[in-house]
Amino acid sequence: MRIAVDAMGGDKAPSAIVEGAVLAAKTYSLEILLVGPQDIIEEQLRKHNLGNAKVQIVHASQYVLMDDPPTEAVRRKRDSSLHVSARLMKTGQADAMVTAGNTGAALAISRSILGKLKGVSRPSLASIIPNIKDATVLLDVGANAGSCKPIHLVEFALMGEVYSRAILGKENPRVGLLSVGEEKTKGSAFTLKAFPLLEQSSINFIGNVEGTDITSGAADVVVCDGFVGNVILKFAEGASVMFFSVIKGEFKKSLVARLGLLLSKKAYKAFTEKLNYEVYGGAPVLGVNGACIIGHGKSTANAIKSAIRIASEFVAHDVNATIQENLRIMNQSLDVQSLKSCEEEDENG
Amino acid sequence: MRIAVDAMGGDKAPSAIVEGAVLAAKTYSLEILLVGPQDIIEEQLRKHNLGNAKVQIVHASQYVLMDDPPTEAVRRKRDSSLHVSARLMKTGQADAMVTAGNTGAALAISRSILGKLKGVSRPSLASIIPNIKDATVLLDVGANAGSCKPIHLVEFALMGEVYSRAILGKENPRVGLLSVGEEKTKGSAFTLKAFPLLEQSSINFIGNVEGTDITSGAADVVVCDGFVGNVILKFAEGASVMFFSVIKGEFKKSLVARLGLLLSKKAYKAFTEKLNYEVYGGAPVLGVNGACIIGHGKSTANAIKSAIRIASEFVAHDVNATIQENLRIMNQSLDVQSLKSCEEEDENG
Repeated sequence: MRIAVDAMGGDKAPSAIVEGAVLAAKTYSLEILLVGPQDIIEEQLRKHNLGNAKVQIVHASQYVLMDDPPTEAVRRKRDSSLHVSARLMKTGQADAMVTAGNTGAALAISRSILGKLKGVSRPSLASIIPNIKDATVLLDVGANAGSCKPIHLVEFALMGEVYSRAILGKENPRVGLLSVGEEKTKGSAFTLKAFPLLEQSSINFIGNVEGTDITSGAADVVVCDGFVGNVILKFAEGASVMFFSVIKGEFKKSLVARLGLLLSKKAYKAFTEKLNYEVYGGAPVLGVNGACIIGHGKSTANAIKSAIRIASEFVAHDVNATIQENLRIMNQSLDVQSLKSCEEEDENG
Repeated sequence: MRIAVDAMGGDKAPSAIVEGAVLAAKTYSLEILLVGPQDIIEEQLRKHNLGNAKVQIVHASQYVLMDDPPTEAVRRKRDSSLHVSARLMKTGQADAMVTAGNTGAALAISRSILGKLKGVSRPSLASIIPNIKDATVLLDVGANAGSCKPIHLVEFALMGEVYSRAILGKENPRVGLLSVGEEKTKGSAFTLKAFPLLEQSSINFIGNVEGTDITSGAADVVVCDGFVGNVILKFAEGASVMFFSVIKGEFKKSLVARLGLLLSKKAYKAFTEKLNYEVYGGAPVLGVNGACIIGHGKSTANAIKSAIRIASEFVAHDVNATIQENLRIMNQSLDVQSLKSCEEEDENG
């Protein structure tokens, strides 16, 4: 299997990306295509003992900066490492792509170059959030922040279900609709419209779930519109930064506390790793005609290694074929008339 | 000053509530009216040495359960401890009320008995979220989950500003609009409409903020619709439960780690306290004609004590008079025409 890795995306690019790619090539015996300016990547690769690792460079003359506006990046940087990575996939030279770069640009470029899977109207960015038992798939987390419609949540639910089954090994993932109360009657105008659509569908829908349930493990997949999902994902990041900063601050205040921390170092490390985004290895773009995993902008070499593993599992489990097939079956059985009327209402309201 | 305390609200009621009320009466030399069934409260009070503490019982024959539907609670339990507390305030026998009970019922009952402040169209529930420096006021967190309009965010912003200044001591609170990107053009249809309204207003508006900024301290007040705010608040609760559960689980795994934790107990305690809702003492209902503080359902005696202190500060700083006056001034200067057109658009779209 061949994975294209955007060597230039992320706060720690190119060094952490190249390091992570080499690690992954060695650990999982995958072929890695490192995409970006040849000279820059060559210089980075010199730091590593490649051994038998299958790592190649694919030259791209440009790269997208973390704060480039996505629409500009799509149009003006057509030879960016993101564009080239997506094109490698499109032309069958790579099976998947991984980037820790500009999320908006990665979404826009993968959508425009790869196109959508058959039957998908809105590709969605999913995030894997650690919960008290294992992990919850939360989507959409930002691919559709401004223009989500209730009917899209059914699609998100189906794609999340497939992902949870394939990558997190859940047999029959429970799907919850994120709302402000468990009762069917609780919610916003948006969720109240989405509820009956999910209920009618073939999804294993368990009804409304609340914000607490994202980490309680009450659902395996939680669907929401892209605005809500993005705000939660960013809040989770910020809260985690605060948590670790406060804990470190307090433990540094006294010698005894520092000694205590030293003794409990292993437990502390296990704890941080359990809640660490690195383990979950990035957010999949679901619904595009290809496998695109977007890592966190702060990705370390280990996080990149995880993201590459996830990308390879995405391909190995044929997530896209399953999404297409399940969508086809669902669209046949779903009451198309009620969907249409919902969508029309939505256009007006 | 006299504070009515709903003795029957909260998971640990009545014991923790009565204990917290006695503590507050002693610490802050306030008069406390404990509201609920006379016999139940008398029995609880017998456990405490009241000394000079000014604690009275006001009998209420009913009380609202944590899972009573709010609308039913309003109509069917007219002699509930929540109703009686609100009536004590309405008739001037109490200056403020505190409850750790059913949030929806407390909101509905306080709105229906106390009414709205002059100029306020939507009372709002604000939450005080710890941030990396001190605390952020986030509103609305659920008083308007289903039916918020962009124009209401201006009101929320103004009320949040007044609260941040009075209770958290911020001189010129910075108000951010919760969105999915800092740029003015990023957001949902809802936030894109709210942005220019906030910009035009007299609010110290710093533009869009993201989910990470709620805990980064980039803004003192963050406004959002009640659905988004509620989901975030609940997610924060769930994430914090998970965090502490994972940390405890890991530290318990080995003897050495447990010893380490023992040594760093003080630091650990300081850390948990910094991130503990008890310190922030509950969520104020802003915009009703009275002072109503809603504590967390899990409130301990200390949390109730904090909530009572916050209630007394709310009254002492005359938060409501300031809200009314600032709203009057803002409504004069705000471009009423643009508001109207926004609201009409909103009715239709």
